[in-house]
Amino acid sequence: MPLSNDDQFDSRILGIDPGLQITGYGVIEAGPRGLTVCEAGIIRTNEKGTTSDLAQRVRSLYDGVLGVIDQFHPQTVAVEQLYAHYNHPRTAILMGHARGVIFLAAAQRNLPLVSYNATRIKKSITGNGRASKDQVQRTIQRELRLVALPDPPDVADALAVALCHYYQLKMPKAICE
Amino acid sequence: MPLSNDDQFDSRILGIDPGLQITGYGVIEAGPRGLTVCEAGIIRTNEKGTTSDLAQRVRSLYDGVLGVIDQFHPQTVAVEQLYAHYNHPRTAILMGHARGVIFLAAAQRNLPLVSYNATRIKKSITGNGRASKDQVQRTIQRELRLVALPDPPDVADALAVALCHYYQLKMPKAICE
Repeated sequence: MPLSNDDQFDSRILGIDPGLQITGYGVIEAGPRGLTVCEAGIIRTNEKGTTSDLAQRVRSLYDGVLGVIDQFHPQTVAVEQLYAHYNHPRTAILMGHARGVIFLAAAQRNLPLVSYNATRIKKSITGNGRASKDQVQRTIQRELRLVALPDPPDVADALAVALCHYYQLKMPKAICE
Repeated sequence: MPLSNDDQFDSRILGIDPGLQITGYGVIEAGPRGLTVCEAGIIRTNEKGTTSDLAQRVRSLYDGVLGVIDQFHPQTVAVEQLYAHYNHPRTAILMGHARGVIFLAAAQRNLPLVSYNATRIKKSITGNGRASKDQVQRTIQRELRLVALPDPPDVADALAVALCHYYQLKMPKAICE
């Protein structure tokens, strides 16, 4: 049976769409008037490719994520899952580095961390597990009553994973399975 | 022309063989009497598989690596490279998480970080890029004058990447290309 009382939910969810160049983030809050976006944006790290640069990039990302956590005090962090059968295995491994420091930031602030795969996120948001980026952006805009399309798409993806987790908490049987 | 003065080298190198269950580490030092092992061992994290556990595991690993850095003050961190064509892509992605927090720890202590692929490490240590784990362990024991085989193999692998970096600094043309 679906839950119906917002007090039972994590009231603030930080969604993160990890990347080594651009990481999208979005903090949503479930209140008496429905869902609101507390903050959303991107953490940008530089784009050079050496090993030492990668260390600096994960450091920038970690600092950025900790900054968002410390400013907005979410109760949960939701992150998109990575796939082993990713089309670009090198990218997936590099994304693993990014996720590693995001996971660390959540653990250091004692925040539970959940992850959902891309298909499930799209399905729970749009009803279609193969929805386009544009569809996700438009659905996010409508559901969260934003005045403009969330842009770049990394921001929409971050809000999408947060919203997917909210739906999962609210209606675990009806929408998210 | 090969360098010949140890003062020109990073005198302490921390080698790390990253893993999410067992991470090997080894600190070697180049002194007037040759190479010595300052410390070597493993950082063990728990083996559960949930997302939140992964966050705790990267946290334990990060704490362990920072602890080694702060106790032994290496000048450089050397880590094995991950491959995109890894036989176990899911493992490679998870290892990416581990490497991410190791890279972060190095960056936070302003230590340069270098990485070498497995073939190059084995070739520089044993002369054979396809050397077995046992060969690597025996060569490391001999080169570093250890009274016993470094065990588990993760410790030998960590010392191997540190030693590979030392050879690279000492004889960049002769051995490591």
